[in-house]
Parts: sequence; C-alpha cells; structure tokens
Amino acid sequence: MPMPTMTLSISCPDQRGLVAKLAQFVYRYNGNIVHADHHTDAVAGIFLSRLEWELEGFEIPRDQIAATFINYAQQEKVFASWQGVRWQLRASDIPYRLAIWVSRQDHCLWDLLLRQRSGDLFAEIPLIISNHEHLRPIAEQFGIDFHYIPVTPETKPLAEAKELQLLKDYQIDLVVLAKYMQVLSPEFIAAFPQVINIHHSFLPAFAGANPYHRAYARGVKIIGATAHYATADLDEGPIIEQAVVPVSHRDTVADLIRKGKDLERVVLARAVRLHVQNRILVYGNRTVVFA
Amino acid sequence: MPMPTMTLSISCPDQRGLVAKLAQFVYRYNGNIVHADHHTDAVAGIFLSRLEWELEGFEIPRDQIAATFINYAQQEKVFASWQGVRWQLRASDIPYRLAIWVSRQDHCLWDLLLRQRSGDLFAEIPLIISNHEHLRPIAEQFGIDFHYIPVTPETKPLAEAKELQLLKDYQIDLVVLAKYMQVLSPEFIAAFPQVINIHHSFLPAFAGANPYHRAYARGVKIIGATAHYATADLDEGPIIEQAVVPVSHRDTVADLIRKGKDLERVVLARAVRLHVQNRILVYGNRTVVFA
Amino acid sequence: MPMPTMTLSISCPDQRGLVAKLAQFVYRYNGNIVHADHHTDAVAGIFLSRLEWELEGFEIPRDQIAATFINYAQQEKVFASWQGVRWQLRASDIPYRLAIWVSRQDHCLWDLLLRQRSGDLFAEIPLIISNHEHLRPIAEQFGIDFHYIPVTPETKPLAEAKELQLLKDYQIDLVVLAKYMQVLSPEFIAAFPQVINIHHSFLPAFAGANPYHRAYARGVKIIGATAHYATADLDEGPIIEQAVVPVSHRDTVADLIRKGKDLERVVLARAVRLHVQNRILVYGNRTVVFA
Amino acid sequence: MPMPTMTLSISCPDQRGLVAKLAQFVYRYNGNIVHADHHTDAVAGIFLSRLEWELEGFEIPRDQIAATFINYAQQEKVFASWQGVRWQLRASDIPYRLAIWVSRQDHCLWDLLLRQRSGDLFAEIPLIISNHEHLRPIAEQFGIDFHYIPVTPETKPLAEAKELQLLKDYQIDLVVLAKYMQVLSPEFIAAFPQVINIHHSFLPAFAGANPYHRAYARGVKIIGATAHYATADLDEGPIIEQAVVPVSHRDTVADLIRKGKDLERVVLARAVRLHVQNRILVYGNRTVVFA
Repeated sequence: MPMPTMTLSISCPDQRGLVAKLAQFVYRYNGNIVHADHHTDAVAGIFLSRLEWELEGFEIPRDQIAATFINYAQQEKVFASWQGVRWQLRASDIPYRLAIWVSRQDHCLWDLLLRQRSGDLFAEIPLIISNHEHLRPIAEQFGIDFHYIPVTPETKPLAEAKELQLLKDYQIDLVVLAKYMQVLSPEFIAAFPQVINIHHSFLPAFAGANPYHRAYARGVKIIGATAHYATADLDEGPIIEQAVVPVSHRDTVADLIRKGKDLERVVLARAVRLHVQNRILVYGNRTVVFA
Repeated sequence: MPMPTMTLSISCPDQRGLVAKLAQFVYRYNGNIVHADHHTDAVAGIFLSRLEWELEGFEIPRDQIAATFINYAQQEKVFASWQGVRWQLRASDIPYRLAIWVSRQDHCLWDLLLRQRSGDLFAEIPLIISNHEHLRPIAEQFGIDFHYIPVTPETKPLAEAKELQLLKDYQIDLVVLAKYMQVLSPEFIAAFPQVINIHHSFLPAFAGANPYHRAYARGVKIIGATAHYATADLDEGPIIEQAVVPVSHRDTVADLIRKGKDLERVVLARAVRLHVQNRILVYGNRTVVFA
Repeated sequence: MPMPTMTLSISCPDQRGLVAKLAQFVYRYNGNIVHADHHTDAVAGIFLSRLEWELEGFEIPRDQIAATFINYAQQEKVFASWQGVRWQLRASDIPYRLAIWVSRQDHCLWDLLLRQRSGDLFAEIPLIISNHEHLRPIAEQFGIDFHYIPVTPETKPLAEAKELQLLKDYQIDLVVLAKYMQVLSPEFIAAFPQVINIHHSFLPAFAGANPYHRAYARGVKIIGATAHYATADLDEGPIIEQAVVPVSHRDTVADLIRKGKDLERVVLARAVRLHVQNRILVYGNRTVVFA
Repeated sequence: MPMPTMTLSISCPDQRGLVAKLAQFVYRYNGNIVHADHHTDAVAGIFLSRLEWELEGFEIPRDQIAATFINYAQQEKVFASWQGVRWQLRASDIPYRLAIWVSRQDHCLWDLLLRQRSGDLFAEIPLIISNHEHLRPIAEQFGIDFHYIPVTPETKPLAEAKELQLLKDYQIDLVVLAKYMQVLSPEFIAAFPQVINIHHSFLPAFAGANPYHRAYARGVKIIGATAHYATADLDEGPIIEQAVVPVSHRDTVADLIRKGKDLERVVLARAVRLHVQNRILVYGNRTVVFA
C-alpha cells in the first residue's frame, strides 16, 4: 500500500489564477503534491482540476480539510462565485464501496472480484444484486451478500425501491452494472447517479439491444466495448473508456460475443479503477479522464 | 516486379467439392498456386474462393483461360448451376485503372499518388475528377488529366452523365472517392458500381455529415475511419477496412480532424490496394477480405 | 456444440497440385469442407495446409481416416516423397488435455480455468503443476489435481522426470506455462515438445528476466506480451501471438506489471485456443496461424 | 492560427510548492493558463512541468519574460537552488526551424513536407541534407535548399563539420533524421543534441541494422517503429513515440517494409509535432510527453 493521499477534484467556470490558487492551498499547509492535472475546455469555458497530495506532513487534520478549503476559497476568492463549482475530497486509503449488478453472464463479475482480491482494484464489494439466481454461488464463494431481485415491468418500481434501500443499507458509493441486462429508470438514476455501465459496442454504434448481432449484420471489421455512466437516456451517458478489437469475415456472431467478452472485462475494469481513484470528472455529457 | 500471376475469384452457393474442383482446374494445366483462400458463410450458404497461380508454366494462353474455365466447370459440374455464380479472372501484371475523385482536401490524394509512384500501389491513375478547381496543380504535377465538374442539385444528372462518359473514355476500373464530399446518385452507382469511399468515422457510428464534430459532441474516446464500397444507400455499403485511434478530453474538433486524416489516408490506401489485388469479394452487404 | 469436424494439418515441401489433391481426398469420401487454409512460404519452399470438414456424412469411419489418407497419398502421389512431410488428424469433439504449470501468480490460471468452464476454451484440464504450494486452493476449487514439485538446481533433473511421468499418467497433450517462472531443460523439451509459454514482453525485446523493470528503465512507450512454443533456447521459440498496450511516463513499474497482466491473460488464452483448434503450424522457428 | 501562447518547460529536483509557485508566476502578471501539466518521478526525485498561457493580456513584454522569471524564482525561492534546474521559454508563434536529413527513401520526407504545408505541422523547413543526390527534386519542388554531403568513413569528420556549419547558418532548432541511414558521431551529438531519429522497429527489439529482415527471421506477429532523440549510443536515446501494426505469416519482408513505412511516417510526424509544441521533456534516458 503506498502512502495515503488526499485528492481534490474540482470543476468550475474558468478564470485566471485557478491553478495557482488551488495548488497554493495545498502548499500553504505543507502538502506534497504527487499528481496535479488540469484541463480547460475553452469551448465550454470550464476548468477541471485534480490535485493529489500526501496526507503525511499535511498540516490540516483529515476531518477539517473540507472546512479549511471552503474558508481558503472564500478568503482567496478562488472562485468568482460558488455558482457552478463542483468539488470533492477523497482520501486514498478509504476504499470505495461497490455494488455489482449482474444478470446471467459472469465474466465481468469474476474479473472484478479477482482484481479486487489481487489488490489491483482497491475497493470493497459488500453487495451483489441480480435479477437471476444464477450467479449466487460466485457471491457465496467470495463471501459477498447476494440479493436476488427479479424485475418485470410491473414490479420494476418496487424492485428499484428495494435496490435503493440496499444501496443505502450497504453504504454503497458506486453501482457497477457488470452485464446487468436491465434498464434503470430515470427516477433511479436521479436518486443514485453513481452508476457505471458496460455496453458491448463502441458507442454510439449499435446502441440498444443485440449489438453483436447487429455488428455482424453490418459487416464491420472492428468491434468494441464502452464503459459509461448510466443516465436517464439509455446508452447516452458520458463515456469513460472504449476499446476495440479487429474482426473478419471468419468471425461468426458467437466469435464476436467471445472476443467482445475480453473487451468488456478490460474496459469495465479500467473504468471502475479510474472512478475509485477519482480520476474521472464529468461535465455535461463528457468526461475528463486524468489517467 | 514479382512473377505475373492469374487470380480467379469466385462466389457461389456452397456445395461439396468446390475447393477440390477449383484447385484441380489450375493443377490440370500445370499451374503453380501461390495463394489459395476460401471461406464458407454457413449462415448464407455461400462459398467464396480466391486462387492465385503463376502464369509462367501455365499451359493455357492468357486469352483462353476464361473460356477454358467455363468448359471445365461445365464438364466437371463444378457448380450445380450457374445461378448465383459470380467469378472474375485478373492477371496481376495488368494494372487497374483508377479515377480519383476529390473535393478540396488533398491528403488522401497525395497519399495515393505517392504510393502509386513508389510502387506500393500497382495501378494506373489517368484521371482525377473534382467539383473544385482547388487541387488541379497536384494533378498537373503528376501529369494526370484533371476534370473540373461542379455539382449543384440542378446540374447533378448532367454532371454524372459527364462523369460516366469520362470513366468510359479513360477505361476506368475503379473510382476512388478520396474525400469527395458529394453523394453519388443510385443511378450512377447502378451504372458504375466499382466505387470505394472513405468515411471519416468508424461506421455505423456517425454516418452522414460532420462525423468529427459529432464524435466530439458525443465525447467518444476512440475515433475511426471506414473504407467501403459506395452503394445507393449513403454510408451503408459493404465495409472493406476500418481503423481507429484513441482520443482524449484534450482533443478539440481540430485535433480529431487532424488525427482522423492519418486514419483516412491509411484506411483508404489499404482498401484500394486490396481491391486492385482482387482480395475483396462482396456478397450481400458484406465483404470477404483475403488479406 | 457445433457439429464435429475432422482437421487435417500438413506441412511439406511445396509442389504443384497439393491444394487440389488434398481437397480431393475429402471430396472423394463426400466430406463437406468448412474451412480450408493454405500457405506457401516461397522462400523456404514449404507448403502448409489445414483442411477442416464435417464428420457427418464423411464416408470413412473415424478410426480409418489416417490409414485411408496414407493410401490415398501414395496412390495419388500427393507428395513427391514422405521426406519432410508432417501431418496430423484431429477430431474437434475430442478435447485436448492440458496441464497448466504455475508458480505464484494466479491471473493466467484463473483466466484459463474460467474460459474452460464457460465453454470458450474446449479442453480438459486434469492437472496443475507448481513449484509452490500457493495456488493449490484454486486447483481444489475446480476439482483439479495439483502437484507441488519444487525445483532447485540440484533437484531439477529429478523434478522434470517426475513431471514427465505425470504428463504421461494424465495423458496430457499440451503443457501451458501460465507464469511458471522456471526454465525447462532442453531434455525436457525434447521429450515433451508441446509446451506453450507466456512471456511478459513483446519478444525479442526484453527476453529473459524482469522484462517490466527493464521496459521501465528503457522508457518504452509500448509494452507487450508474447505467447510462444517453448524450445531449448530460452524465449527463442516460435511466436504464436503478441499484443501490446501503450504506456506513458505516468506508469510506474507496478503499473506496467498490472497492465501487462491483462495482456498476458488474453495473449496466452488466444494461443492455447488456437492450439487446441489445430490452427497453428510450426516450421523452423516460425508459426503459421490460420486464425 | 490560434492565439499566441508562451510555454514554460521546467525540470528540477522535486520539492514542495512547485506547482503553486510556477502557476503563481503566470497569475501574478495576469496570464491565462490554457494548459498546465506536471509530473513527478518519485523514484528519481524529479519534478517536470509545462505551463502554457496566452500572451494576450500577459503583463510582461515578450523579451522580458525570461529575466522576470529569473527574478521571480529567486525572490520566491521557487527552487532550493538552480542546481539541476533546466528550463525553457518558447512562444507558439515563432516556428521551429527544422533541417530534414534523408538518404534515398522519400516517404518520411514527403510526409513531413506535406504536413508542414497543410498547416498540421507549424514549423519552417529551410534545409534538407542528404548523403545522396536522389531526393533533390523534392527539395526543389518545395523551394527548400538541398545540400548533398556524401559520407565515407574517411570524410565523416569533415562532412559533420560542414553539416554543423549549415545548421548554424540556417539557424536550425531541430534536426529530423527522416530515414537518414547514417550514424552521427558522439561529437556531432554533443555539438548539436536536438536530433530526432526514426527507427524502423519497436525498440529495443531489433536495434541496429535491417530490423525488418530480422523481424521476419524471428517470426514476430507485430512490427513497430520508434521515434527517439539521437544520442551517442546508437538506438539507445530517449524514446518519444512508438507504434505497431500486426503482421502474419502471409507477410514477406517486402510486406513488412511496406507496412512499416506507414508506421514510420506517423510516428516520426507525431514526435516532431510534439517537439515543436514543446511537449517533450527529457531527463536521464526518459521522456515525459505532455500530449
């Protein structure tokens, strides 16, 4: 385990002096910056920044950093106003708590669980939710609570209410849809927006159902997978990560599905890792990924 | 220049014995096969084959190979019937004659001309057509006839008639739309179907106009380019070749366009090369590429 | 499970008529070819072919196909002589039997076991051998025999004798070195040459030990992984498959190792799958991969 | 042309406050930062930074920025000492002046010239040097001075002296070895270290001569190209950019060479573009590329 760090993520309207003032906050209290990333979207007039510094030697106790930052920002007029400012502080040694949602396919589930166990993914996974009983044995093997919540058009509101309660009970920070073949309602997303989905195509190509069949029918020479934040508009959320693999006339639909699985695993795992390291900033329908 | 070869390309309804009988034709007349590729689309029930053999030592004179093959196929019952059989014979030392069509962007034109001149693309390029005068100097530098044919909705039928006449006059085998930002009419395609287009997206994503602007708006992490045969349905023709490049939040629309140019050049050049080597077989809306 | 097929793989000195005569063997007995691949290495004068046809409807019983082929080859003079002819017949419904060898890293082992269990890798895995006890629990979970065989310079000959005996006892067709961090002796390879290794670099770069550390030290912008057949010369065997991933100045050695694992998994799995589908032909130090 | 900017590149021993103090310099004089990139190599204890801000509105005249920065750094104790500090200021509207060195191959030369002319590469190219007369016509077409300087072991010192004089006369900032198949002496590199070379392999694989032939002999499944700064040790300099392309058993040495050319063009062009945008910082044998 490397030394614990604090990460400050900010997006706000662009103005002069932001890099200097934000870094000055860390320096004033003797913080040692290990990563500093900034991006300005000149078209949108938005500034995005991620500062990561070592907690060791930093002169503000953890539980007072947020209050101190607010004071500092006001005194130093870091922001012209707090209008449009979004910010977050996260310590690197407090793991994100993930709920993984699955249907019947297990390859992304296995992948995330094994990465977590090997230490490549620093997170806690206390909860698995599924609309099938199928993958319960995997949850049991890893000692993770498994909740079977079937969904029909009629029971969906009730099911989602139950799911939201579970996310609350388990103090979940992030839902990972690891081939959960159900659409979440706009109400759910509004109540719990921290949801990463893996879509088995290089969006926006083949948004919607059966992308591999449609990729085959179209005769493409490349297939892909896309990890994105779920939004009320299906397959339209901010894209985090994409990857592709070449295919040829020799590949049947079954081959596309098989090759696609390797993409899905890696793309989803990368997106989740980026999220729990606070490397993704979202604005509008876009992401800034400070990889 | 390697030894000249003959290439027989065939697509037909699948049946037993096709590989044996087609190869036997070459062997009977003492041909030395240098490449033999076959593919069966089990779903569609179609067999596709490409045989390439050295002309040296082959016992049939060039101008009688087609007739001899027809006789052989009938005697040996190679095909259950000629219904659905499409075949072609091409000698490798007779270059394809290409017409390159452009608008104002020159990067694909330069690329093709330089490849042709260096010997990496074995073809003749006697004709460049454009709806702008802009690129005439490049044509002149390479000693290629340049025809300026402006197109408006009103003049389009007349323009296409003129273009078809030019293709006939110059004995063109293949039209390469090297960033020719105009749509060809279904009538044109029907009259001259051998047309390769480069589309600046990984189709079917961002079919239609302004793909780079739309890719930027969507916030994708990968952009692509697609070479395909032009058909009456815009951007829906059989895909030959695709390639992609990663992009990030740092890339503006201008960066996507710049990065995309490198893809367009390479993807179009590969597709044209595959075509003039008779490595592409089309059936339905699909291609088999014996690369 | 698709319909069972027979695969005939051949490499031999090149001569006229091979494609025709080999395909004719299948056709004579009413076989329906589903894949036919050929390659001629003009420099080496070697012809390589892989024919796959459906067993259903084929008029020779399975256990007589080999003998019938030998007769056919002699009668039809398929080969000028049997000198230099290597051939193999394999039915698709008889699974390869794999032994997986590991040390302490488990990511490739998990990957292969899960692919096997999901049906993406058609093979039996009755045996795991390791020079550490570390991964025994995984073997037990999957109900696979686990043999712990420690290796020191002194015990190596004895250990290899024990290993060879195990391969014989378990009727192993293929050894997969899934991050087995030990070198096999030339004697072992001579006795059992069917061994696939995964090397964690894009060979021949960083052959030998600690490739990720050396890749970091060299400051490369791309890292890779290589699956190859093990030979007496370390890291010099015929390459089957390679893949790469970009890295940057932000990546530490630990990041290279983590990113490399994803490559190792996929590259090794692809190579093993190609092998058990008889898609790899080796000649000299090269492979022909009919993917 | 976008608004002109100033770029400050710095590498120095790491210490607290660097991000804040460097950004504060820009802010104090009302500069609007458009890009701010930092990297800390924790192992080497080195901090690297690139700040780019708009010149419009910046309150220091161009010709006084360097002096003002030195004063600021001393007053604010930005650096513990000037020992180990390397820094550079470049305005974006003053083009780098490139000399392109070639032998007989023209593909990289054409590529760079066309990119420069299209505006994708903002630079001046007043000088082409070659050890052959072969490519003089291209230089003439673009109106660029061409100097033919043959090199033999005996004449090399004299040739390099002449070359150094030319670089001085033409006020060259950067030498681009665009397939210049000659090794530069350590003395030359010491006198003029700003030299980018393109090597036709994914270094460190196949360093030295004839990489494509050796890649073929080794039977690799991927080939690559590497752009790096030239150093006294052949093919050992800091790597800037690498790219790869898959190859197969079907590819002859000629195919590798042809496919490699596409890599060489793109990789060299990217490296040169990164350099003239001051996006590359070198320390030890490594590069940080703020792409």
